[in-house]
Amino acid sequence: MMIVMKESATADQVEAVVRQVEHVGARAHISRGELHTVIGAIGDRDHVANLELDGFPGVDHVVPITRPYKLASLQFKREERTVLDIGGRKIGGPYFMTIAGPCTIESRGQMLDAAAAVKDAGAQLLRGGAYKPRTSPYSFQGLGEGGLRLLAEAREETGMPVVTEVMDARDLDQILEVADVIQVGARNMQNFTLLTELGRAGRPIVLKRGLSATLDDLLMAAEYVLKEGNESVILCERGIRTFETAYRFTLDLMAVPVLKQHTHLPVIVDPSHAAGRRDLVLPMSLAAAAAGADGIIVEVHPEPERAICDGPQQLRAEEFADYLRQVEAVAQLAGKELATSY
Amino acid sequence: MMIVMKESATADQVEAVVRQVEHVGARAHISRGELHTVIGAIGDRDHVANLELDGFPGVDHVVPITRPYKLASLQFKREERTVLDIGGRKIGGPYFMTIAGPCTIESRGQMLDAAAAVKDAGAQLLRGGAYKPRTSPYSFQGLGEGGLRLLAEAREETGMPVVTEVMDARDLDQILEVADVIQVGARNMQNFTLLTELGRAGRPIVLKRGLSATLDDLLMAAEYVLKEGNESVILCERGIRTFETAYRFTLDLMAVPVLKQHTHLPVIVDPSHAAGRRDLVLPMSLAAAAAGADGIIVEVHPEPERAICDGPQQLRAEEFADYLRQVEAVAQLAGKELATSY
Amino acid sequence: MMIVMKESATADQVEAVVRQVEHVGARAHISRGELHTVIGAIGDRDHVANLELDGFPGVDHVVPITRPYKLASLQFKREERTVLDIGGRKIGGPYFMTIAGPCTIESRGQMLDAAAAVKDAGAQLLRGGAYKPRTSPYSFQGLGEGGLRLLAEAREETGMPVVTEVMDARDLDQILEVADVIQVGARNMQNFTLLTELGRAGRPIVLKRGLSATLDDLLMAAEYVLKEGNESVILCERGIRTFETAYRFTLDLMAVPVLKQHTHLPVIVDPSHAAGRRDLVLPMSLAAAAAGADGIIVEVHPEPERAICDGPQQLRAEEFADYLRQVEAVAQLAGKELATSY
Amino acid sequence: MMIVMKESATADQVEAVVRQVEHVGARAHISRGELHTVIGAIGDRDHVANLELDGFPGVDHVVPITRPYKLASLQFKREERTVLDIGGRKIGGPYFMTIAGPCTIESRGQMLDAAAAVKDAGAQLLRGGAYKPRTSPYSFQGLGEGGLRLLAEAREETGMPVVTEVMDARDLDQILEVADVIQVGARNMQNFTLLTELGRAGRPIVLKRGLSATLDDLLMAAEYVLKEGNESVILCERGIRTFETAYRFTLDLMAVPVLKQHTHLPVIVDPSHAAGRRDLVLPMSLAAAAAGADGIIVEVHPEPERAICDGPQQLRAEEFADYLRQVEAVAQLAGKELATSY
Repeated sequence: MMIVMKESATADQVEAVVRQVEHVGARAHISRGELHTVIGAIGDRDHVANLELDGFPGVDHVVPITRPYKLASLQFKREERTVLDIGGRKIGGPYFMTIAGPCTIESRGQMLDAAAAVKDAGAQLLRGGAYKPRTSPYSFQGLGEGGLRLLAEAREETGMPVVTEVMDARDLDQILEVADVIQVGARNMQNFTLLTELGRAGRPIVLKRGLSATLDDLLMAAEYVLKEGNESVILCERGIRTFETAYRFTLDLMAVPVLKQHTHLPVIVDPSHAAGRRDLVLPMSLAAAAAGADGIIVEVHPEPERAICDGPQQLRAEEFADYLRQVEAVAQLAGKELATSY
Repeated sequence: MMIVMKESATADQVEAVVRQVEHVGARAHISRGELHTVIGAIGDRDHVANLELDGFPGVDHVVPITRPYKLASLQFKREERTVLDIGGRKIGGPYFMTIAGPCTIESRGQMLDAAAAVKDAGAQLLRGGAYKPRTSPYSFQGLGEGGLRLLAEAREETGMPVVTEVMDARDLDQILEVADVIQVGARNMQNFTLLTELGRAGRPIVLKRGLSATLDDLLMAAEYVLKEGNESVILCERGIRTFETAYRFTLDLMAVPVLKQHTHLPVIVDPSHAAGRRDLVLPMSLAAAAAGADGIIVEVHPEPERAICDGPQQLRAEEFADYLRQVEAVAQLAGKELATSY
Repeated sequence: MMIVMKESATADQVEAVVRQVEHVGARAHISRGELHTVIGAIGDRDHVANLELDGFPGVDHVVPITRPYKLASLQFKREERTVLDIGGRKIGGPYFMTIAGPCTIESRGQMLDAAAAVKDAGAQLLRGGAYKPRTSPYSFQGLGEGGLRLLAEAREETGMPVVTEVMDARDLDQILEVADVIQVGARNMQNFTLLTELGRAGRPIVLKRGLSATLDDLLMAAEYVLKEGNESVILCERGIRTFETAYRFTLDLMAVPVLKQHTHLPVIVDPSHAAGRRDLVLPMSLAAAAAGADGIIVEVHPEPERAICDGPQQLRAEEFADYLRQVEAVAQLAGKELATSY
Repeated sequence: MMIVMKESATADQVEAVVRQVEHVGARAHISRGELHTVIGAIGDRDHVANLELDGFPGVDHVVPITRPYKLASLQFKREERTVLDIGGRKIGGPYFMTIAGPCTIESRGQMLDAAAAVKDAGAQLLRGGAYKPRTSPYSFQGLGEGGLRLLAEAREETGMPVVTEVMDARDLDQILEVADVIQVGARNMQNFTLLTELGRAGRPIVLKRGLSATLDDLLMAAEYVLKEGNESVILCERGIRTFETAYRFTLDLMAVPVLKQHTHLPVIVDPSHAAGRRDLVLPMSLAAAAAGADGIIVEVHPEPERAICDGPQQLRAEEFADYLRQVEAVAQLAGKELATSY
């Protein structure tokens, strides 16, 4: 951490900062510039992190040097990328994974039809929501336990591993009975007690980026899971809030290569929620694959017009095979191995 | 809801939309403009809300007409404003309330000193955090149950009602034993299962606006609480995420008068978290009072330099009385009654 | 335009709005919902656009129906896409175009070396800035007229058409002597008098999206040029301002397919300025091509380490041929024809 | 400037950075931390500013230490605040100034009526736009030269100094004949050639913050004017672009105290454009005064319902005196002297 003193800082003020740095167990290293004196606080990450010097007399501002996460960083794994194996399907490093299925589990027929379609097309994982975070308390909140049972049935029938969302730590035991991968929604990205529970549960996690979370925020949320010993975290870019109103969210694809420079964890993209419209899902999926994403999580419905929730953004089941073929072609150009090839 | 058809929409496409509108139990009302046909879907809010027509052939876009919340709306209370009475202290309508205390409960001495200072200065409610949502898993996470006991002691000693934050529904029973008002942090604003529990608990709530929550999102989150029968919700603006990096968050004071046009609920402002710096707390508190806020929630610490968490943004206890006098003077100019005057 | 009345609006207030609508020469069409009365104002776009009813008694809010631009819209050209031919190089519709060259013209050697490199690699157009908009008045502002002469020489030597930026209408005549395409920078996107001049000049334009311009703002800026009779406008996404600080700007690739749904004009992407870092240029270029962009404008320098301006974001000349091969492979997958193939 | 090296940086890479620092004439100062080596580049601001090391091998990131502006900084004036005297009316330091008048000059009657109203109420400066930057080329673009003549007449009649906007450097001579203060609109904030001309013209400037300009961007834009010898720049916060759609722009009042910490220049607020609605102008004006603004620029119209442009946001002339009394009362509480008191 570098503490930049004001031009007008006195020698006493510099001295007081140095004492405070040493008080937390770090070393102070003074560098005098033309205008500003800069004090480096050198030492253990945790000690230095507890230095709160923003308000100190004579301090202009404080600049962190070390990134705030450790276990999530690429350096921690000595530049080696995490590859997860989920029921024989791989993601991360060279492997590209497609996760597909309906937004919400609505009925037995809908779930099984969707599952069959995504399996036939060649997706690796099956998704379906039983607990749905909805902006409105008047909207359908998911089938809950009943939905989990239908998901289990689809898992049985297709042999595909399944992904479903947890909203409340009190539902976790139930979900662990069915889910191969547990999704944390964007609005729960900083539900820290839930993240800690998931760290302890040990099951692979898809962690969606919050609507206004920086990449550092996302990596710190992952760190909550990793810290408990669960190393299986997949990060997911799904669109951020910006001033643009022409689409629901702004898909931030630059996050993909930048996250991969900072972390060993796999990074996937959810084009369905960002766009909110079916016709944008294909171009944004191709763009995500081209940007180097390790996978895609996408919504597919046998009859989107009859979907209870988010129909307009779900791909039609009959178009999904063609969609997938195109996405995989771009992923290959971007240097990925496909599941079918290993 | 108005469905705007594309210029190129065919008569069949218009007809299909009309059928879909009638299918959900609403009436369709067609209006043909020079370029666009617009179909009004008229009927019960809930039916119309379930119309998902964004993807329909020939549909250009869909415009909601009715606001998505009902119980939170000013119309629902026929333009009458909610006034809450918390242990004899009032907020809402003409009443201005100050909530003050340390960010985090750190020790018995710190909590009791802060409590005495804010009481002496004339604040109405006492705040203090026992469970702290922290971006980093390596940061101090609060004293938990021990903190609640210290808060109970401060409540006893000062006779002030207390506000504290809940992060996890599983801590709720414990918190209900101590807290007069329960705070929901910005990062939990859309923790929908927690909101529902708080609706059932019936205790007054301070609901902080999420970092990228629109005013409609905030009012829908309040609606989750109101729907369960808990009418005591205080909304809190605490800064939003924007491109500006000169401060931690951008305090959105226009939210105050605009929320008050839409809802009967009291609206307060947290200047401490938005600014992250003590020297901005006074000007932003004055501005909040001038904008018509129903109150302020502000952090005060006996020794900010020794604070474990967010020291730089906490007011010094010895400066608090002077601060409060200035804020109350502006609140009075903005038409508010102060606690001391009733 | 739809005028949504408040629930509490009186019959007189509705009547007053109707009179105002008719006053500007439009027809009023009343639709009464359960809660709200909605008044459609139907008539000529320009008349209706001048209706300013936001402040009217009883009016809740006003919803525009018709998009504000006309000449830029896809409907105006009956869904046919504009293809520009610039010295025999095509862009728009099926054609993908690469524009490359140094950020700033620095010297004869640098300009000619860069030009040779981008020509050899197969780029279609050559770029180079003589007038540079710089945030700081202390930064290098470009070689001006001298830079234009070097650009003319590079044009002569390579036979490539050239793109250069105009910052001030008073420099336009000079620039018109050299430039085949004139670039308008993001910070001048709403310099309306400059846009009007460029409309009159008739030369093809690359119009960069402003840092906080919505797609509608961008299309309205293009409309200023089109309105003067200049139909040769290329729109350019180059990153927007968001809360994310991990990169200079957030490249908004969803703008590409959405713009193409609304306008017949070609849409290109500038990955260099958005990223500000060389290592992100390739993945974001691939993503842009995958998203359906009609071209790329990218910075290439023979010795980026010695660049006076924006060195870190410029591709190395010797790596450019390999870069271009990869981008073109993705563009082809996305359905584009390459210059080499026609 | 501090250059933070990667953990994995080699001794050679550190050495290469040091050489580059020395190459631009600065001194390098090395500080080795637990994880990172940090190199301070110490020397003349301009030399250091030209160091472009972001792309260098082994460099993690670069942190500027010195602010990029000099003449605009509070330190440059040794903490003394600039007070401008405009025809005997003062702004800056202890003085609060109100600038009022119609958005656009529409007719002789409208201009003279508005002028009389704002004079009678006690405003210090008169505003009125002759050249109007409009998002749409189809909107009214102002009366131009004819408008300037009407403004001159209003100036003559009331004896008030006048403020009007320049959009194009080619109109400057004409405007200089009438205007006491020249306004630069938000969309021209980074029209660098225009800023340079205004620096040379020497007339006081109101410089509006761009829709997505950081405070540093705004101060650098002011620096363009100051650098030419014109020290009379008034900065104006007028709302920024954020994700919130409930209002036209988000008024960023924290900019007021923060700008005043960094610069000696006066800072005013335009509540009319931010809100876009009359009913928000009073609360946001009070908030601006409470936040410590040096003045307000506000729109007043004798008949807003008949305004050609931005009618809904203009205050009614007959309400203006009451509005001004309230704003001035808050400004006084915030420590300002009013014109009437000196």
